[in-house]
Amino acid sequence: MPVKLGIIGYGGMARWHHKNASKIDGVDVIAAYDIDARMVKEAEENGLRGYRALNEFLADKDINTVLVATPNHVHKELAIAAMDAGKNVIVEKPVALSVAELDEMIAASEKNHVLFTVHQNRRWDRDYRIMRKAVEDGLLGDVYTIESRVHGCGGTMYGWRAYKKYGGGMLYDWGVHLIDQILYMMPSKVESVYARLFSIVNPDVDDYFKVLLNFGSGLTAQIEVGTMCLESLPRWFVCGNRGALHIDDFEAKSGSITSLNKLADEVPAEVIDTPSGPTRLFAPRPEDATDHLELPEVNVSWTEFYENVRDVIDGKAELIVKPSEVRYTMSVIEAAFKSHETGQAVKMKY
Amino acid sequence: MPVKLGIIGYGGMARWHHKNASKIDGVDVIAAYDIDARMVKEAEENGLRGYRALNEFLADKDINTVLVATPNHVHKELAIAAMDAGKNVIVEKPVALSVAELDEMIAASEKNHVLFTVHQNRRWDRDYRIMRKAVEDGLLGDVYTIESRVHGCGGTMYGWRAYKKYGGGMLYDWGVHLIDQILYMMPSKVESVYARLFSIVNPDVDDYFKVLLNFGSGLTAQIEVGTMCLESLPRWFVCGNRGALHIDDFEAKSGSITSLNKLADEVPAEVIDTPSGPTRLFAPRPEDATDHLELPEVNVSWTEFYENVRDVIDGKAELIVKPSEVRYTMSVIEAAFKSHETGQAVKMKY
Repeated sequence: MPVKLGIIGYGGMARWHHKNASKIDGVDVIAAYDIDARMVKEAEENGLRGYRALNEFLADKDINTVLVATPNHVHKELAIAAMDAGKNVIVEKPVALSVAELDEMIAASEKNHVLFTVHQNRRWDRDYRIMRKAVEDGLLGDVYTIESRVHGCGGTMYGWRAYKKYGGGMLYDWGVHLIDQILYMMPSKVESVYARLFSIVNPDVDDYFKVLLNFGSGLTAQIEVGTMCLESLPRWFVCGNRGALHIDDFEAKSGSITSLNKLADEVPAEVIDTPSGPTRLFAPRPEDATDHLELPEVNVSWTEFYENVRDVIDGKAELIVKPSEVRYTMSVIEAAFKSHETGQAVKMKY
Repeated sequence: MPVKLGIIGYGGMARWHHKNASKIDGVDVIAAYDIDARMVKEAEENGLRGYRALNEFLADKDINTVLVATPNHVHKELAIAAMDAGKNVIVEKPVALSVAELDEMIAASEKNHVLFTVHQNRRWDRDYRIMRKAVEDGLLGDVYTIESRVHGCGGTMYGWRAYKKYGGGMLYDWGVHLIDQILYMMPSKVESVYARLFSIVNPDVDDYFKVLLNFGSGLTAQIEVGTMCLESLPRWFVCGNRGALHIDDFEAKSGSITSLNKLADEVPAEVIDTPSGPTRLFAPRPEDATDHLELPEVNVSWTEFYENVRDVIDGKAELIVKPSEVRYTMSVIEAAFKSHETGQAVKMKY
């Protein structure tokens, strides 16, 4: 059975889904509902059935799956309405503004026996998958720090994303991706969360943040997003006890891995002079004690998100973006907001 | 009156002082005391009066200033003994292992009316001074984050520095420099400290740490040292609301500043596509809306440390490395250890 997709909220992300999901075998985008008549008209011009009333949209029997792509503060009510109408539901990220909201959505999906998932599309980012493969293949030894950064300089946030009441801000917008990526790969659980949020050029929401996730394994992940960073640190920086990796950009066009080789244990570093004093620990390793590796290759396509939704509806696959995982990420985001408000690290409860 | 320097503990740092302080006009290194007879013999071979007994060394009337360059756990008792003998005292960093120890040392200097200072030599590091000048000259606008990192890959720490009981570990060894650099430039006070310490390849001490200093002004400084980071992030990364800076290395051989120019407010960023979705905030700024500046020039020499000691003894100058500043840094280090132990941010008390 193909996915017959109806979209709620025909804004920027909806158009991106319309264009890209339509290319996937077994996925048809057929309708859109919006409260703004101009958006409905544009949806119609783009070949969709346009709806200006939610009840009419939900009554369309041809729609078996609804994508909620509205501002964040109305995800919950719209997703639940769609599930109560018997539709499978995909929600744009962040799924909701709190764990409590999300729990209502999960309850609705269970009550109505419909698929419920979230467009955590950055699980398919090439840079992420390459980093993950290097860690999982043991190229760095035991990894103790993973640093995930997105430093941009667009500055001002646009539209509803600049307002707290609509669920704006960078922790919801990008934090939810970057936290999900880390949790999705980590066998150990987060024990505590420490976060600092800043409003640099967007007064009503966070537009720069640092979040530290301390895992039971001892590993710390640092997640950082800024919209007014005119220089940037690499997208990924990961250190283990036998190697380290950096990846510069989203597409992993550049990056590298340096690891100790067998010679390393016999060839210690030498003392060097710096302008105001000597150091041995911070001298370079002799070249012949380290190996420089290429970033591993990965084969990844974002289209797997919709292919998975299609196959789950057909009973042929297990859901990739599970409600339980989305709930875990949301609980970490809640802890990060609480950490910022209290100035304290927040211990996670499971 | 020239500085007539006697050194306690003729190890690696003592030899560095012997060689370098001797070159400075008005500074003579004349004697050394060590508990190890072989070190005393080497001091004598290097032209110093050698002492194997502390009381004889302190009875040498020609010595007017004592440098304590021993392992950290005996700084306090040796510095106090020297001050009680009427000597001016310079202590290698970290000055002591706690604020309580330091307060005893400060009391001894006040009781004996002698100079008491600490060799915080990295206040004269070129990279630090360039970063500081860029911030203070307003090249970055209002600065909200300063990140100071030293990522090395020497791995194993040497000698007493690998043992907790001697005051080893990276927070004492390098943290004290990097924290002092930040506190020395910041008009605002630290409100809270959050720290994570790790033992990656040195089981008894911290050899990787992250320390976050949250200032009353809203600025956060992140300080990070690792001895087993086979790739490294830049030495400095600083962002303000109108510009950002990075400096790659200790000598500032490479680095750059990017700042918004007057065009920036009229030329917003465009939406770009990344492999799994669109983004506007993380698109590059149009080239004509930013300026790329060279790092500012600074003229700095570590020798100013000893020249200042000499001039203070002569009544011609104010002490640069003040006991009150050293105490501030030590209180932040104590807070960092406490934060690590408790897993919580530690609020500073003044």
